[in-house]
Amino acid sequence: MTAPADPDAPQDMARAQDALVVFTPSGKRGRFALGTPILTAARQLGVDLDSVCGGRGICSKCQVAPSFGAFPKLGVEVREDALSPWNQVEERYRAKRGLAPGRRLGCQARVMGDVVIDVPPESQVHKQVVRKRAEAREIVLDPATRLYYVEVPEPDMHNPKGDMERLRDALAEQWGLAHAQGDLRTLQGLQAALRAGEWKVTVAVHQGAQTGGARIMQVWPGYHEGPILGVAFDVGSTTIAGHMVDLASGQVLASSGLMNPQIRFGEDLMSRVSYAMMNPGGAAEMTRAVREALNALIGQLCAEARADRGAVLEGVIVGNPVMHHLLLGIDPRELGWAPFALATSDSMELWAAEIDLEMHPDARLYILPCIAGHVGADAAAVVLSEAPHQSDDLVLIVDVGTNAEIILGDRRRLLACSSPTGPAFEGAQISAGQRAAPGAIERVRIDPQTKEPRFRVIGSDLWSDAPDFDGRSVTGICGSGIIEAVAEMRMAGIIDEDGAIGSAEATGSARCVPDGRTHAYVLHDASAEGGPRILVTQADVRAIQLAKAALTAGAQLLMDKMGVEKVDRVVLAGAFGAHISPLHALVLGMTPDCPVEKITSAGNAAGTGARIALLNAAARREIETVVRRIEKVETAVEPRFQEHFVNAIAIPNKAAPYPELAKAVTLPNPRFGAGAEGEGGSEGGRRRRRRPRG
Amino acid sequence: MTAPADPDAPQDMARAQDALVVFTPSGKRGRFALGTPILTAARQLGVDLDSVCGGRGICSKCQVAPSFGAFPKLGVEVREDALSPWNQVEERYRAKRGLAPGRRLGCQARVMGDVVIDVPPESQVHKQVVRKRAEAREIVLDPATRLYYVEVPEPDMHNPKGDMERLRDALAEQWGLAHAQGDLRTLQGLQAALRAGEWKVTVAVHQGAQTGGARIMQVWPGYHEGPILGVAFDVGSTTIAGHMVDLASGQVLASSGLMNPQIRFGEDLMSRVSYAMMNPGGAAEMTRAVREALNALIGQLCAEARADRGAVLEGVIVGNPVMHHLLLGIDPRELGWAPFALATSDSMELWAAEIDLEMHPDARLYILPCIAGHVGADAAAVVLSEAPHQSDDLVLIVDVGTNAEIILGDRRRLLACSSPTGPAFEGAQISAGQRAAPGAIERVRIDPQTKEPRFRVIGSDLWSDAPDFDGRSVTGICGSGIIEAVAEMRMAGIIDEDGAIGSAEATGSARCVPDGRTHAYVLHDASAEGGPRILVTQADVRAIQLAKAALTAGAQLLMDKMGVEKVDRVVLAGAFGAHISPLHALVLGMTPDCPVEKITSAGNAAGTGARIALLNAAARREIETVVRRIEKVETAVEPRFQEHFVNAIAIPNKAAPYPELAKAVTLPNPRFGAGAEGEGGSEGGRRRRRRPRG
Repeated sequence: MTAPADPDAPQDMARAQDALVVFTPSGKRGRFALGTPILTAARQLGVDLDSVCGGRGICSKCQVAPSFGAFPKLGVEVREDALSPWNQVEERYRAKRGLAPGRRLGCQARVMGDVVIDVPPESQVHKQVVRKRAEAREIVLDPATRLYYVEVPEPDMHNPKGDMERLRDALAEQWGLAHAQGDLRTLQGLQAALRAGEWKVTVAVHQGAQTGGARIMQVWPGYHEGPILGVAFDVGSTTIAGHMVDLASGQVLASSGLMNPQIRFGEDLMSRVSYAMMNPGGAAEMTRAVREALNALIGQLCAEARADRGAVLEGVIVGNPVMHHLLLGIDPRELGWAPFALATSDSMELWAAEIDLEMHPDARLYILPCIAGHVGADAAAVVLSEAPHQSDDLVLIVDVGTNAEIILGDRRRLLACSSPTGPAFEGAQISAGQRAAPGAIERVRIDPQTKEPRFRVIGSDLWSDAPDFDGRSVTGICGSGIIEAVAEMRMAGIIDEDGAIGSAEATGSARCVPDGRTHAYVLHDASAEGGPRILVTQADVRAIQLAKAALTAGAQLLMDKMGVEKVDRVVLAGAFGAHISPLHALVLGMTPDCPVEKITSAGNAAGTGARIALLNAAARREIETVVRRIEKVETAVEPRFQEHFVNAIAIPNKAAPYPELAKAVTLPNPRFGAGAEGEGGSEGGRRRRRRPRG
Repeated sequence: MTAPADPDAPQDMARAQDALVVFTPSGKRGRFALGTPILTAARQLGVDLDSVCGGRGICSKCQVAPSFGAFPKLGVEVREDALSPWNQVEERYRAKRGLAPGRRLGCQARVMGDVVIDVPPESQVHKQVVRKRAEAREIVLDPATRLYYVEVPEPDMHNPKGDMERLRDALAEQWGLAHAQGDLRTLQGLQAALRAGEWKVTVAVHQGAQTGGARIMQVWPGYHEGPILGVAFDVGSTTIAGHMVDLASGQVLASSGLMNPQIRFGEDLMSRVSYAMMNPGGAAEMTRAVREALNALIGQLCAEARADRGAVLEGVIVGNPVMHHLLLGIDPRELGWAPFALATSDSMELWAAEIDLEMHPDARLYILPCIAGHVGADAAAVVLSEAPHQSDDLVLIVDVGTNAEIILGDRRRLLACSSPTGPAFEGAQISAGQRAAPGAIERVRIDPQTKEPRFRVIGSDLWSDAPDFDGRSVTGICGSGIIEAVAEMRMAGIIDEDGAIGSAEATGSARCVPDGRTHAYVLHDASAEGGPRILVTQADVRAIQLAKAALTAGAQLLMDKMGVEKVDRVVLAGAFGAHISPLHALVLGMTPDCPVEKITSAGNAAGTGARIALLNAAARREIETVVRRIEKVETAVEPRFQEHFVNAIAIPNKAAPYPELAKAVTLPNPRFGAGAEGEGGSEGGRRRRRRPRG
């Protein structure tokens, strides 16, 4: 590929026969013979410059930006004629497709003098995929499925190798991609494509780890720009989230989600396992349901991205062990009892068709490994996304959901467990609870003086005390709303440390109303206008206490195993985790004590982990290795779990100190529980509450 | 597995603490501690002693025959108590299943003194599969798919590996079978099987070359005896032949065949390629037809072997390039014109389901490599069966069929070509021609003196001159019959070197009757009794001349390339090749000159090659390597082919000398052709004919 003397080259023989080329931002540099294409120089120096067409001036992926003038820091002076003039290929490309000012095609522009070449981010093969959070791992684009443009030698009667074998050899020679094999469907279409493209084709190659090398999934005549797409799924007990990405750019083209239709067989994991055990064919029914849902979701994503199912060449799936097994058609009954044996714990490579997913007919799937019988591929994906194994800090990651996964560790050691929090955090088991949807209360503030609430509902920017707020539009309270409500009630002295709601007399608020043998707090009352009346009942508070106690007890068990009394930071993951206010989580004691500013939300980290595995094949090997060294803790058989759990029912906690919380907020200390009313606990609470915060 | 002191062992401490064990027929020997099981001793010495259950006294595959008394040649004296007495496991096995006299279970019988142990053939893992022909290669049983009995550790909450991963580790530990992965269906059934078998299971493992290692195809609870079956198919243009074998014993359980239903789309290869080109969807129609035929054939084989389709775990398929492509769903049009480009030439591993074959749902297929665009996987299978690459002699292999494949070579060099002989050898294009079926004339003799014929038909042991022979039962003449007829006519002076049939006057036989402007020979006339009148016409002789000329020209082209003037031996392959008499083939000049006794028949060598690849995985690697070094000769572009062809139209040949033939038989030399009648050529012929032969 190194070019001989270029016809456009100035014939001034007094000039040096080679020139210095400096690439930015890598800083890589070297001397090259005059006439060397920039792409060739980049390859020889190992500079990350993309090219699908292999330097044939077709794909324009190798665009570079030359700089001219004096660069004292680099020790280079770049003359205006440091690159060969525009040639026909570049002119044609610019006329047909446009080329931004200052850009050249790296495969066409040739070195004619010392030059500084900037490789813009979009021209790098291993592009950085942008993530918004500073603390999150970087995602480098390096997918398992890629396009290659190849020129294949024509058949020759004296060398009777098949078309496939000549394509394979061309891939090895032109792209260093050895031993590629073709899927059967590829073989069926190969001869027509080669001839239609006049022996120039673009191929999609998947490089799996388990299938023994590169497999050609499709062949297109000539240069094919794509897109080639991938989907990443996080199959949760309640919701299924999906992202569609462009495998060439790493861009997310569509994101969507839908309810897991298995809900009709049982709200939580154990009820679905029971359904499988009690009903012959029940597991198969649930398998069908979730596969249909994934197909519907692929349809939604394709519609949103205006893409064709046939262009979806790859998928990555994560999910908890029960979801994982049901999706794969494995009866989950063994996950219902000790020792919670997984059918398989390793990562898997499958054909999408093996589990009936409607994508490209030969699309490949990658399923992340499971960590243990209760800690699934979703938790592995969280690890991949949050990278605790690369953290110097000791980080606690809590994936909040119906079944919470908890990971504690740093680059030295990792522990994991799961804890059955139940569906309270998702608004279930709450009297006015509902899913996060328009009309649901999601933010709550209670004035510690007046004990009057104000709130915001999903779908509106107005707080409830704004003049235009329509009180009739409120429909219920969602997971993050109930957490804030209970935490605010605790801060306002409406509930005590044990979670008991005080009476109107004890709290001094008429919003505390009798509710059977206990009290409830009236968060919203629009009944006069024909609207709803939303209460936070004693049972609601109890449900949140039990859920958060399970979460904290799990975390504390891991801390015991690790031999630590505090963590450096906390990450709240899960779609729902993204909406929890760190301060309120801490007040509630949902997490161990930690500086408030060290509690962050990771959003749907499992989904992000799936997306990382889709975009970067090395990340698959990474998580497979990391998962093997995660120490699994089974909460069900650890005697200390129960003790931590009982202590964690208190708000924030009966036993564990919360000095960091105390720095942020001083909690009042009333006593409303059995026998407390007469002891003036509420008075003491009220007194404390009146102190200014700070 | 080496046993500690055995409770049954005599406590006589004066005896040596170890003893000599000599295995026959291998002659391997070694000293072992008293109490060592024979199976353990065999394994340590590398003696080929089978065991599926891994020495647990279940499978009885490790049966051995101890010998007692003096063995001066081996230098051993074996006492009656040289082995431990029968234990409970052996007694139970003998009671339940029977054990031949003199046999012990190798895993139970322990060394108690110097002993000679014979390993009978059926107890060897790498059994020799019996072939009848001395010159054919040996087949050693070593299939890609095997059964293993494994004991899997129970799951443990503190080590949350999946069931599959524990099975994989057990396979590695107990059988040295590393990195086995499970098919999805295996995973789906794994947990139930492990528990039903109380953590003891039998697994079928397929070790592919392209799928990156061992894959577990099925799991059975406890010890599963099988059978596990394989099928080998030779897909010919006219017929499809199939064998079903027991993969554990190598035994052929059933053999069957049927017509290739693609015949309705065209008799020969080129007419099928044309059909694909002329009719949209035509290739797909032919693909469906051949796949349906294979499924029907699998059904026939299962019925004959009283086996279940689900037990058929593996298949091997060979066929010519057009059959190969059509079966795989690849449009064969490129094989219809130069440069005859194959879609793929390499061997392939597929799931049977990928080409709709109804076997075990995860059954694997192996397709042999193709040699060139006209020399297919069937020719590769012939090479595997006849092993010219292991031959010291220079061997010419001719696979006679509608399209003949010709291979020439020895261990140093191999050449191959194909030659379009057309269907004359199969009885087509012959006036009274028919397929080889009851009633067809298959053997012909003509008295050189009287020129009276006698013949035999398929389905009868009588010659036609026997008193009980029923002349009305004759229906036609098959391929081997017409070859013998023409050769006998040549030997009897009824036709001349150019193939012209002489008149009654010229030949002196009233059986030579006028037939238009030429003559015909009346082979059989039962018209008086209402039976048939079978003629060999001039056109019939011409058809055979053209067919055999193509064959010989191809062989001679290869001899030119090889730079030789004669070959050491000739193998006639193809179902039809088996029925050709070597002398008659030589008289006809179907093969180059060669001593008659050096011409042998290999039967359906392609089918045998497929069976070898089914029974021995190493044979697959062998043929893949050998095929790569076969030099392909394309007859269509070789100018000398035409010259050889023209010369080979003569019987036996216009140009090539046939000294070996002359040693066996002296051919008369009449001249009946244009201008020959008046020149006394027939007289000369007649004179020579009257000389005694020898």
